[in-house]
Amino acid sequence: MALLSPSRRLRRTVFSQGVEAAGVKAYTVYNHMLLPTIFRSVEEDYHHLKSEVQVWDVSVERQIELKGPDAARLMQMLTPRDLREMSEGQCYYVPIVDETGGMLNDPVAVKINDEHWWVSIADSDLLFWIKGIANGWRLDVLVDEPDVSPLAVQGPKSEDLMADVFGDEVRSIRFFKFKRLEFNGQPFIVARSGYSKQGGFEIYVEGDKNAMPLWNALFEAGKKHNVHAGCPNLIERIEGGLLSYGNDMTDDNTPHECGLGKFCDTNDALGCVGRDALLRVAKEGPTQLIRAIDISGPEVGICDRWWPIMVNGKKVGRVSSAAYSPDFGTNVAVGMVRMTHWDDDTSVQVVTNDGPRDALVKEKFWI
Amino acid sequence: MALLSPSRRLRRTVFSQGVEAAGVKAYTVYNHMLLPTIFRSVEEDYHHLKSEVQVWDVSVERQIELKGPDAARLMQMLTPRDLREMSEGQCYYVPIVDETGGMLNDPVAVKINDEHWWVSIADSDLLFWIKGIANGWRLDVLVDEPDVSPLAVQGPKSEDLMADVFGDEVRSIRFFKFKRLEFNGQPFIVARSGYSKQGGFEIYVEGDKNAMPLWNALFEAGKKHNVHAGCPNLIERIEGGLLSYGNDMTDDNTPHECGLGKFCDTNDALGCVGRDALLRVAKEGPTQLIRAIDISGPEVGICDRWWPIMVNGKKVGRVSSAAYSPDFGTNVAVGMVRMTHWDDDTSVQVVTNDGPRDALVKEKFWI
Repeated sequence: MALLSPSRRLRRTVFSQGVEAAGVKAYTVYNHMLLPTIFRSVEEDYHHLKSEVQVWDVSVERQIELKGPDAARLMQMLTPRDLREMSEGQCYYVPIVDETGGMLNDPVAVKINDEHWWVSIADSDLLFWIKGIANGWRLDVLVDEPDVSPLAVQGPKSEDLMADVFGDEVRSIRFFKFKRLEFNGQPFIVARSGYSKQGGFEIYVEGDKNAMPLWNALFEAGKKHNVHAGCPNLIERIEGGLLSYGNDMTDDNTPHECGLGKFCDTNDALGCVGRDALLRVAKEGPTQLIRAIDISGPEVGICDRWWPIMVNGKKVGRVSSAAYSPDFGTNVAVGMVRMTHWDDDTSVQVVTNDGPRDALVKEKFWI
Repeated sequence: MALLSPSRRLRRTVFSQGVEAAGVKAYTVYNHMLLPTIFRSVEEDYHHLKSEVQVWDVSVERQIELKGPDAARLMQMLTPRDLREMSEGQCYYVPIVDETGGMLNDPVAVKINDEHWWVSIADSDLLFWIKGIANGWRLDVLVDEPDVSPLAVQGPKSEDLMADVFGDEVRSIRFFKFKRLEFNGQPFIVARSGYSKQGGFEIYVEGDKNAMPLWNALFEAGKKHNVHAGCPNLIERIEGGLLSYGNDMTDDNTPHECGLGKFCDTNDALGCVGRDALLRVAKEGPTQLIRAIDISGPEVGICDRWWPIMVNGKKVGRVSSAAYSPDFGTNVAVGMVRMTHWDDDTSVQVVTNDGPRDALVKEKFWI
C-alpha cells in the first residue's frame, strides 16, 4: 500500500484525535475527508464487528442542510422516491439522480420537519448539484454544509452500549427512525441506522464541543462490552450487499441497475428532475444489474480497478468490490452484470489483477 | 504518514502504470483520483523540477465538457471573469463562484470554439454545479466528463523535451494558448501552462490508447535532458504563490479574498450567477486576504489542518499550506489574514502542530 500525504484539503474530523489514539492503520479519502479503513486488520476488525460493538468516525458522511419554504419541494426534485408519506423523525435511503436518471449519490435523507432536512451523503459533492438546482429553479431555500459529524455505533452489542450512554430510550428507536436524546445536557439526533448489517445507531454530532467527550464516554462505558474503534468493513459490507457509490455505481448508472428500483416511485415522484428518463427505464427495464459475485479460489487481491466479467471471451460485466470472507469461505464480490448473464448461478470468469478466476453470479448477497 | 487503502473509488489513471514504474512513494486523492505527491523526496523532486524537466500525471485535472448553442452563455454564468474577448485556442484561469460569490473551484477554461469548451478543474465535483445550473436555467448544452487526462511537462528544460516529441512548433505556443500538435499520427491539444512557476506544457490526452505510448516517448526522448517523473511540488508551488483549492481557499471565500480580484470583471461579466454578491464585495473590498507567510525557525511539520495566526492572543487569520524552502532558507507558507494585519512585514505568530512560531506577513510570494 502506498502512503497518503496529509494536507488540510484532506480534512481531519472532530474525532481524529480519538481515531489516532485508537491506532488507525490506514485511511481512504471520502468527501475530501479522512475515513479510517483499518484498525487492527480488515479481518480482525470484521470478526469483532460481527460479535461485539464498535465506534466509527463517519464524519465523512457530510450533511447537506435544506432549510426554507421550498425545502420539501427541492428534496422531491432530487429523488425518484415518493416522499409524501415521510413523517418527521424519519430517515429514507434516497437515490439522487440527474436529468438522465444517472446516480449522483445515494444518501440518507433525514426529515427534521417539512422545511428542514438533512441529507447524509455518500462520496460526491452533492451540495453543488443541490445548490445549482435550487438556484436555477429559483427555489426559496438555503442549502449549506452544516458542521455535523455522524458517529456510528455498530455491532450486536450496540444497543446495550448506547443505552449506557443515552439511557434506555434508545431501545425504542425503530429502524431508520430517530429521536433527540441527551448527552452532557445537549440534545443529539440519534438514528437507528448505519453502514453495516450488524445493527446499530448513528449519532449526529453538531459542532466539535461535544465530539471528543462523547467519543470518550462511549469508550469508557464500552469497556464492559469489549468496544473497539472500527470503520465500515469491506468484507462485511460486501457480504451484506451494501453498495458503495464510486465503487459499485457511478453517474453512468440508473437506480434500477443498482437494484434500487424499489426506491423509484417514478409515477408518483412528481417533480423529480430525472423522472422522464426513469419512466423510460421503468418501462423497458434495466439491461444490467448489480449482483453478488462468488469468486472461487484463494484470497483475491485488492480490487483497485474494475475487473472485467467475461464469458467466452466476451465482456458481460465488471466487478467493483471484492474481498475474501472468512465466514463464508469464499471471495465475496459486487458486480454489474448484463441481462444475458444475470441469472442465479450463471458461470462467468472474473479477470482479477492476478489473472482470470472462475466465478458464479448470485441473485442474493450472503446475508 | 498513514497508509492509503486502494479501491476502485479512488480512480487510477491512464498513466498509473508509468507512475508506479517510476517509483511513486505517496499519493493524495484529488477529484476521486490518485495524484502522486512524492517520487524521490519532496526536497529532491523540488531541486530537480527547478533545474531539469519532469513529466507529471495530472489526470486528476478532470475535464468538464460544455457543448452546444448555450455553452458560451453557461461558461459566463459560472465566472465573474469577462469572457467576451477570449479567442479560440486560448486558456483562461477562471474563478467559479456560487450565487453568494463563494469559490466553488478555480479551473482553467479552454475555449475550443464558441460552442465547445473544456474546463480543467481543481478538487471539487464542479460537474454537479454546472449540470445543476444548466438544468435549472434550461440551457441548450450538454455537460459531461469526457475521458481526457492531462499530462504535464514542467521545468526549465520542458520546451526542449517537448520539441523532441512534438516538433519545433511547440516553441511558438504562447503562455496560456494552445495548439493541436501530432504524436503518433494523432492530434493533441498542447497548452503552455501548468501548476508550477518553472515553465512548461500540458498535453490533453484523449482516451487511453495513446497515453502510455506518449508517456514512454517523453521518457525515452527525455534521457538526454535528465527527465524524471514528478508531480506538483508543495515547496515550489508555495514559493510561487500558486493556490490550492481546498487547502488555501474554500467555498467560504470570495475570489477577492484569494487575491483573484483581477479576474473579476464584475461590471462586465453579465449573467454570472454570483454577480450581485461580488458587486457588493468589489464596492466594500475584502476584509481578509491571501498572503505569503514567512515562518521563522527550523523546518515546520506537515500542515494538515489550519494553523491559527495570532496577534496578542487574538486570531487574525490562518495558515493553510506550509513547507521548508531550501532555496530561501525559511518556512514558506500561504495564509489568509484579516485586514488589520495584512500589511507587508507585519509580525504575527503561527500556531503550528508543534506550538507557536514567530512569522511575518508578506505582500509578495517568493518568486
